[in-house]
Amino acid sequence: MEQPRHVTFLSDFGTESGYSAVCELVISRLAPAAKVLHLSHAIPAGDVPSGAWLLRRLLPWGPAAIHLAVVDPGVGTKRRALCLSCGRGDQLIGPDNGLLMPAGDLLGGVTAAWLLAEKRVAALAGMRGEPSHTFHGRDIFAPTAALLAQGEPPDALGDPLDPSTLVRLNDEGSSTEPGRVRSQVSEVDVFGNVQLAIDWSRALEHLDMRTVTVRTSRGDRRARLAGTYAELEPGQLGILEDSWGCVALVMRRRRTSDELQVALHDRVELISRPRREDTASVPPESRHGSRDA
Amino acid sequence: MEQPRHVTFLSDFGTESGYSAVCELVISRLAPAAKVLHLSHAIPAGDVPSGAWLLRRLLPWGPAAIHLAVVDPGVGTKRRALCLSCGRGDQLIGPDNGLLMPAGDLLGGVTAAWLLAEKRVAALAGMRGEPSHTFHGRDIFAPTAALLAQGEPPDALGDPLDPSTLVRLNDEGSSTEPGRVRSQVSEVDVFGNVQLAIDWSRALEHLDMRTVTVRTSRGDRRARLAGTYAELEPGQLGILEDSWGCVALVMRRRRTSDELQVALHDRVELISRPRREDTASVPPESRHGSRDA
Amino acid sequence: MEQPRHVTFLSDFGTESGYSAVCELVISRLAPAAKVLHLSHAIPAGDVPSGAWLLRRLLPWGPAAIHLAVVDPGVGTKRRALCLSCGRGDQLIGPDNGLLMPAGDLLGGVTAAWLLAEKRVAALAGMRGEPSHTFHGRDIFAPTAALLAQGEPPDALGDPLDPSTLVRLNDEGSSTEPGRVRSQVSEVDVFGNVQLAIDWSRALEHLDMRTVTVRTSRGDRRARLAGTYAELEPGQLGILEDSWGCVALVMRRRRTSDELQVALHDRVELISRPRREDTASVPPESRHGSRDA
Repeated sequence: MEQPRHVTFLSDFGTESGYSAVCELVISRLAPAAKVLHLSHAIPAGDVPSGAWLLRRLLPWGPAAIHLAVVDPGVGTKRRALCLSCGRGDQLIGPDNGLLMPAGDLLGGVTAAWLLAEKRVAALAGMRGEPSHTFHGRDIFAPTAALLAQGEPPDALGDPLDPSTLVRLNDEGSSTEPGRVRSQVSEVDVFGNVQLAIDWSRALEHLDMRTVTVRTSRGDRRARLAGTYAELEPGQLGILEDSWGCVALVMRRRRTSDELQVALHDRVELISRPRREDTASVPPESRHGSRDA
Repeated sequence: MEQPRHVTFLSDFGTESGYSAVCELVISRLAPAAKVLHLSHAIPAGDVPSGAWLLRRLLPWGPAAIHLAVVDPGVGTKRRALCLSCGRGDQLIGPDNGLLMPAGDLLGGVTAAWLLAEKRVAALAGMRGEPSHTFHGRDIFAPTAALLAQGEPPDALGDPLDPSTLVRLNDEGSSTEPGRVRSQVSEVDVFGNVQLAIDWSRALEHLDMRTVTVRTSRGDRRARLAGTYAELEPGQLGILEDSWGCVALVMRRRRTSDELQVALHDRVELISRPRREDTASVPPESRHGSRDA
Repeated sequence: MEQPRHVTFLSDFGTESGYSAVCELVISRLAPAAKVLHLSHAIPAGDVPSGAWLLRRLLPWGPAAIHLAVVDPGVGTKRRALCLSCGRGDQLIGPDNGLLMPAGDLLGGVTAAWLLAEKRVAALAGMRGEPSHTFHGRDIFAPTAALLAQGEPPDALGDPLDPSTLVRLNDEGSSTEPGRVRSQVSEVDVFGNVQLAIDWSRALEHLDMRTVTVRTSRGDRRARLAGTYAELEPGQLGILEDSWGCVALVMRRRRTSDELQVALHDRVELISRPRREDTASVPPESRHGSRDA
């Protein structure tokens, strides 16, 4: 028997109002055997960069699958509705606002793209009447994911697009110079850990991690290079390569975000002695990948 | 191979304390192949009308399935425990307090009903001892859903009831007159959009949507007729037919509920010039249905 | 066809940051047919006793399964990573900090234990590079659960351990004397009900439940013996055997935790007339078990 297809699902819908549930209902109606895997519905409302960041971070860890992602402040405008194919075998479904591209790049690159044709999708999905203007998650994107899970080819759902025309987010994440890294906060997690939008390996090229000062709008604070939470003293600020390969500011059993008074998308500066090439610091190779190809 | 049965699940249990999880565990023990689909566990505690509203809104979008719904402030009293069959092929399980009926009406109507017999359910479910007095979700309703998913007929679980005796909620949602609609807030969603408990098509019979004033306990405010969020100016209040076919008050990238200072179940009044029949307004037919029969 | 394996999953990861989602992605990649059942990801950060309490409470209600549990403040230290086999046929995966043991005791006892070998797990899971120091949920525990679901024997993943060496939590839950019970708050649920860490049957040996005074740091308050919420007057404090067989303090449609100003892990004292053996109180047998063996 063929394995049921996995459909991952990320949105800014929350889980309270039934928006994410109704998408899963639509999928279950059209593709009863599909396995829906909820990534997060807690993306801040309309925050496309945060959604893109989480997709990029998560998807390489899972199986090649159909990925439904809806953070769509432009719903009802002329923004395009997309289906993308990736080199690894994944398909990405969502709005053309940059949400899907960082993940697509990591999944073997976007090798083909389609502009979803609302009426064709609605007809194949057995929808009566027209799609709503305000909820394409339910009316276009979820049906598309379900139809793909049922084996419908993308060509039946839309027309080919040139992938080079797809919207990309500006990368305003970070900038570097010797002894100095400026970066946005890319996430404050449930523990209050503060992740910066810069890879550890890239930061290592510019900073001596043993001498880092963290500069926020509230002032400066020294950070200790750490391997894990448990080696920090109470109240001590640590800097480490987190489990996603990024720079993170952490404390032991305390919320770093509260302590530093920083929030998502705030800017933080890391300052150190310039890195000397002969310094035997933490090796710069990325510590942990997703899996062998 | 027969398709595994879907079991949808809605409650006011939250997802933190394990109440909804233990129901899923019970289902998984008794019906290992069932697919549990969580609709929402964030119904305000004991708020039967909100639960009924969400069920009614969601279920028509999914497959014919077994629907478990527990918002049950009367647990442990004489209120009846129900299994309902609907014309579309769905089965609804929950307390007899009005929760299930609005959805049942939409799913082809309630064609048969059973009063669940606690001891029969417990025996078939292999429970030892008596059901608790405070958690029929785990001890009666979830086992019933699982037994139905395994093919047990309702007659084995309870005794037939006359559907005309089932408890129904009073519909205090809305009232209308020419140029005036009074309605309850039926939902404030994750984006702060304010949905009213009245269908757009019904409101259209009484209001000229191009001239609506919204009256709340905080005062009056003009609303602009909109098709989607994106066409509103910042700070402008919009009125539109939302994706559920209801009247909604919305703003662009701002929480309407905060701006109007209204919350779930608050009353709102819409006032306009009386509607002239020759006015070419938005066509009144319902915009979008769930699926072809 | 063999039934797909259930994998339950409990953590303190929340559902917002993608930590729990990435573990499910890893499981879905390695064990595509496994059914992941989320118990809760809302355990307070690093609160091992709360996680242990919830696991113990929930797992007996479900099928024999693979149980992944990660509340792991010692990640990256020398604390051991475990796989445990239980008498009922369950397997428990998680850190050696006491989290798994109370559930294991209820599931037929821990009959065998293995110290997970990080490199063997990573190799079998097709991970490249080394596991992170800060996220063994994704890099050790979830892959272990998936490999077990695929039929890998524990011996392939680690080395046998003597179960008597496993870390156990101190039971500081409660103490008793005639007419007096001291207990911790083991949970405040979504309704504000206050559960105490003492079985009803044990409390009954020491208290006359018809005359209980509840003593908190805010003062004393009489509680009425109740069978269910609905029989309480508005504003009246009730004491009852909750659906888990524990002592609970409840009110009708009001949050008891707010009213008593108590929170998780606070200490509460119950004082009554000493129990007279001839008193016909509520029968002391445990009301409701999980299932027949």
